[in-house]
Amino acid sequence: MKKILFSICLLGTVSGLRAEDGHQLWLRPHASVPVKVVGPAKSSALLATARQELQQGWQGTAGATVTLKLTKDKAIKYDGFRLNAQGVQANTERGLLYGAFGLLRRQQTGQAVAEEISNPSYEYRLLNHWDNPDGSVERGYAGQSIFWRKDSSFVVTGHDRALWQQYARANASVGLNGAVINNVNSSPLMLSAAYLARTKAIAGALRPYGVRVYLAVKFSSPALLGGLKTSDPLDPAVIKWWHAKVKEVYQQIPDFGGFVVKASSEGQPGPQDYGRTHADGANLLADALRPYGGLVMWRAFVYSPSDKDRAKQAYNEFVPLDGKFLDNVIIQVKNGPIDFQPREPFSPLFGALKKTAVMPEFQITQEYLGQAIDLVFLAPMWQECLRSDTHQAGPGSTVARCTDGSVYAQKHSAMAGVSNVGLDTNWTGHDFAQANWYAFGRLAWNNQLDSRQIADEWLKLTFGTAAQLAAADWDAHFLAPMTQLLLASREAAVNYSMPLGLHHIMSATHGHYGPGPWWGPPGMRADWTPPYYHQAAANGVGFDRTTAGSNAVSQYHEPLAAEFNNPATCPDEYLLWFHHLPWDFKMKSGRTLWDELALHYDHGVRQVRQFQQTWDAARPYVDAERFAVVQNKLRTQSGNAVLWKDACLLYFQQFSHLPIPAEVEPPMHTLEGVIANDAPPLRRPAGQP
Amino acid sequence: MKKILFSICLLGTVSGLRAEDGHQLWLRPHASVPVKVVGPAKSSALLATARQELQQGWQGTAGATVTLKLTKDKAIKYDGFRLNAQGVQANTERGLLYGAFGLLRRQQTGQAVAEEISNPSYEYRLLNHWDNPDGSVERGYAGQSIFWRKDSSFVVTGHDRALWQQYARANASVGLNGAVINNVNSSPLMLSAAYLARTKAIAGALRPYGVRVYLAVKFSSPALLGGLKTSDPLDPAVIKWWHAKVKEVYQQIPDFGGFVVKASSEGQPGPQDYGRTHADGANLLADALRPYGGLVMWRAFVYSPSDKDRAKQAYNEFVPLDGKFLDNVIIQVKNGPIDFQPREPFSPLFGALKKTAVMPEFQITQEYLGQAIDLVFLAPMWQECLRSDTHQAGPGSTVARCTDGSVYAQKHSAMAGVSNVGLDTNWTGHDFAQANWYAFGRLAWNNQLDSRQIADEWLKLTFGTAAQLAAADWDAHFLAPMTQLLLASREAAVNYSMPLGLHHIMSATHGHYGPGPWWGPPGMRADWTPPYYHQAAANGVGFDRTTAGSNAVSQYHEPLAAEFNNPATCPDEYLLWFHHLPWDFKMKSGRTLWDELALHYDHGVRQVRQFQQTWDAARPYVDAERFAVVQNKLRTQSGNAVLWKDACLLYFQQFSHLPIPAEVEPPMHTLEGVIANDAPPLRRPAGQP
Repeated sequence: MKKILFSICLLGTVSGLRAEDGHQLWLRPHASVPVKVVGPAKSSALLATARQELQQGWQGTAGATVTLKLTKDKAIKYDGFRLNAQGVQANTERGLLYGAFGLLRRQQTGQAVAEEISNPSYEYRLLNHWDNPDGSVERGYAGQSIFWRKDSSFVVTGHDRALWQQYARANASVGLNGAVINNVNSSPLMLSAAYLARTKAIAGALRPYGVRVYLAVKFSSPALLGGLKTSDPLDPAVIKWWHAKVKEVYQQIPDFGGFVVKASSEGQPGPQDYGRTHADGANLLADALRPYGGLVMWRAFVYSPSDKDRAKQAYNEFVPLDGKFLDNVIIQVKNGPIDFQPREPFSPLFGALKKTAVMPEFQITQEYLGQAIDLVFLAPMWQECLRSDTHQAGPGSTVARCTDGSVYAQKHSAMAGVSNVGLDTNWTGHDFAQANWYAFGRLAWNNQLDSRQIADEWLKLTFGTAAQLAAADWDAHFLAPMTQLLLASREAAVNYSMPLGLHHIMSATHGHYGPGPWWGPPGMRADWTPPYYHQAAANGVGFDRTTAGSNAVSQYHEPLAAEFNNPATCPDEYLLWFHHLPWDFKMKSGRTLWDELALHYDHGVRQVRQFQQTWDAARPYVDAERFAVVQNKLRTQSGNAVLWKDACLLYFQQFSHLPIPAEVEPPMHTLEGVIANDAPPLRRPAGQP
Repeated sequence: MKKILFSICLLGTVSGLRAEDGHQLWLRPHASVPVKVVGPAKSSALLATARQELQQGWQGTAGATVTLKLTKDKAIKYDGFRLNAQGVQANTERGLLYGAFGLLRRQQTGQAVAEEISNPSYEYRLLNHWDNPDGSVERGYAGQSIFWRKDSSFVVTGHDRALWQQYARANASVGLNGAVINNVNSSPLMLSAAYLARTKAIAGALRPYGVRVYLAVKFSSPALLGGLKTSDPLDPAVIKWWHAKVKEVYQQIPDFGGFVVKASSEGQPGPQDYGRTHADGANLLADALRPYGGLVMWRAFVYSPSDKDRAKQAYNEFVPLDGKFLDNVIIQVKNGPIDFQPREPFSPLFGALKKTAVMPEFQITQEYLGQAIDLVFLAPMWQECLRSDTHQAGPGSTVARCTDGSVYAQKHSAMAGVSNVGLDTNWTGHDFAQANWYAFGRLAWNNQLDSRQIADEWLKLTFGTAAQLAAADWDAHFLAPMTQLLLASREAAVNYSMPLGLHHIMSATHGHYGPGPWWGPPGMRADWTPPYYHQAAANGVGFDRTTAGSNAVSQYHEPLAAEFNNPATCPDEYLLWFHHLPWDFKMKSGRTLWDELALHYDHGVRQVRQFQQTWDAARPYVDAERFAVVQNKLRTQSGNAVLWKDACLLYFQQFSHLPIPAEVEPPMHTLEGVIANDAPPLRRPAGQP
């Protein structure tokens, strides 16, 4: 009888799921089951956190005892942990916290807890926040900064601290241990006393969750903030200024993580302003940080307007410096050689720097992938990069293995993701953008993890209830189709925006949302305009990076260079990245390039429509609030996918002079109309900025 | 050998068709073939016109002789004509001109010329131009007025005269013999000396083509223009003023046609302002016009904001006056009881006025049917109305027969169409809107003509060349699919905008273009807002005009009243016009009303996409200029069809709370977004106003 009542109760729950605003992320509260947590004798904030998490999230046997044990186990790396029937063992307190979260995740997602060791792939797993001191967020689509604000920036409120702790908890739950809390386009003010005071408060809120703070610094701070005549990295006064400043920072924040630097890039000052190298600049800061265990993450995102192929420059500048960096410098390299495009081949710097630590930088915030409108799960994109074989140290020297210490001896290893977090109630603007925060953390912990597992975990944690997970229909009617949707979503976005190796053809009128193959205001530097990248003309389309062209292809190790160099062997995905080909080029499919392009755009549109139907069918399994918001966003994405398709096909058709294939849905925009509408903001869901 | 050369030449013509701007309409010049025209001894402008048309358009045997002969043949009615091997016979000079055009049309469309009599269905076949004295055109989508302009209105230029003659020639070619050259929302200035002088000049330009001018007059002209204290139709001074004014008009224009009056309607003054009836008002003017053979066309388009069902009012006001109008008054009745909606049942006034002449008023300009953007061929809509059986005088008393004198004895018969002509080079804005001007003329001449024949003629005349018409592929690859497109286009427009009897649910923000089921600014009179018409609520949708509702259904003669009154027998096309039905009402298809509604909207969208593909396939048969313009308009129509579908389904879904069926393409707009975008102008092709 009790069982029957329980079932009825469950039915009620399923048909009237509790309203959710997304603020709980993948850490939604569960009915508590009593557990006894036995921990080390010493007490600490981190240990208290681990204990508290276990007690409020335990889903195992009621009344069980869990032991948290600090050990010295050589099989455990960094902040890794060992799970077994008794509990968690780790070499560090952070390891115990991660073990606690790992245990709970296994319980909540229905995975068995077996004896196992879980070690992180990277020592440092960081979010980069492109947050400005005025509270705005560059490429942020989820509201203002959670760290900074224009008014009363220096008054730390109870609400601030609570939010920062929630943020840190989310990071800790997926193993992230660092946060760069300001924009890489940095203000010198960040190193002033007032800002350091707020940074200290932030560090204090993050510390109980094992998240250290880092700052992005402006290379010209000695002159701008310190009043020196120069910021030349070899100038004794400059060196002295940085040493004093670093000391000041560590007096405030003893576990401060280090600096991120965007130097000599896109107008940011750097060592080249003084005739010095990136190594001179990075080593100056690394030398100052080294006594405190601090790191320098020096970004390789450099290119000049005069170069004939922007894709080549980072490699050209950094490879000659290989081996010249101090061992607490890590070169931070974006996944692709251009800039976080929907699809790029991996950056040729991965594996090419053999005596220098290199870390991947991914973009979690969806600058080029639909911002807070489009549902795009990024794990497959990052997985594609991490699993790319650079061949730089023989077959199997993947990007993952070239950066995590498996291939090259590097003192430190790290991975960074540009955060999508803001003050929006659900943190990330789009409810599904939470999945990208989650996925980044999981991949930084385990760079071999499969996207499918990440999607499965996140869906269960974010939408499942214990009752649903136990019910027969949930897997088939919600989990399976939604996993498929997540896994297909990035390819759909590539299809409807930049298929077949096209890149950087968005309009900048709307901050990189929406199509703009025509975009290029008068006087704009060429390498910021789409025509530079797509090179569409009567004779074909694509950027010739072959040996006959810019020769960027030769930055890749054989056999890749040869494979990419030949249009017959170059993967379709990268075809127009490496080749300028005639419109009637015969593709592997047997179709012409033009037809294949059109079909890819069309397929992308149809995929989004399929996502809409999948989501509509998921309605019974989702609370009404999140259902409606996501449904509306999918609708807008659907319309904008059509806009991409129509705009790009009609634009390119001006050069191809070929008909749109009959299988493709006829355009519902005119090229003239789309270009004319490129000035006012595109259609966005009501309430969106 | 000669034959081979000719074929090569033809191929060249087909692949590189001469650029056309549409200004020639369906009267494109043809290679001339010599002909000898023998005419009556007397010379006149009309006869000269007929002779000239034959000489410049002859496609028959070279050197043939054609005789134009005035006769007194009782088998010939009005300006009808008899064709035979010798030429044309008619009782009037106009008849000879129409016969000449008829002969040429048969030649140019490949019809055999057999002995036949062609009589017009209506004595008066008129265009109503809603042109204002300032040159603007109410509900005009083809530029400013060809008759009036703001600056130098009274200077008649050579260009004016030439344009008016081209206009009159186009009218004459389809048998139209009258033009009301100003808006029914009339200015009293139209009867002032200055405006009458310009009217005289217009009449002079139209006369050689047999087109008489008419004016729309403001009922309060005696007070506003004449300075009288009243415009009371029974006031002796008023009567005197009108008689004097009419005399003045006829002194200027001896063949002046008469007056159109919109009185006591939408703010226009009328006899009811003085406690008089429509008959009092109409008869006042008719009495003044009668000595000169002038007509009064008195519009029945009246409704008041206080009436519970706007659809009923015209009937209620005019039926009691039946028999009280002078015999040179014709009551001008719009096809439907509301206002030129995409689909309405016929107005119940047709057939109900048995002792009063009644004329149909159709709207050629596409106010509610896509303006100058959407391709909608209106002949099927007019045919639907004309063939509707009113049953007022037994079975077979169709609207056509009740208005053309077949059923009731009426001294005069007429049909009027609200013109879509403006200063645009192609006259009508959309190249295909020319077909509606053409179709109206043809139906006014022969109200039994089938839409398919009209489409066939117009396509041949407007797009065909002699070479194409002779070629094997043209019929199959151009004429047949394009005829299908034209014939389907109106039903498509109904489907994507107002299916199943929905009506008046457009937004007025954009001048009646685009969806607006929500539309209704604060303070707006209810019967100007869509919610008044669709009555959507949780309990269903539609306007209850049954005997249990407004009882408008009882204005129809049995068996129609009973058929319409029962949702089981009411045709789907009129279902929500007559009924308020629950969302889950079981339709004849077996589907629910909600699903059927959704499928109709979706089908409309898919139809437009099919039109796009048909047009794309027609490319080899159309000159590049017209092809590109129409292709772009179809694209915009396609997008706007999706907008209609999404907006209406999402709006109604708020009440139905039912899911959009899986077969229906998921929305690519959000309701919030669509409503928010209802303020700025909708997407229109570049270059459109």
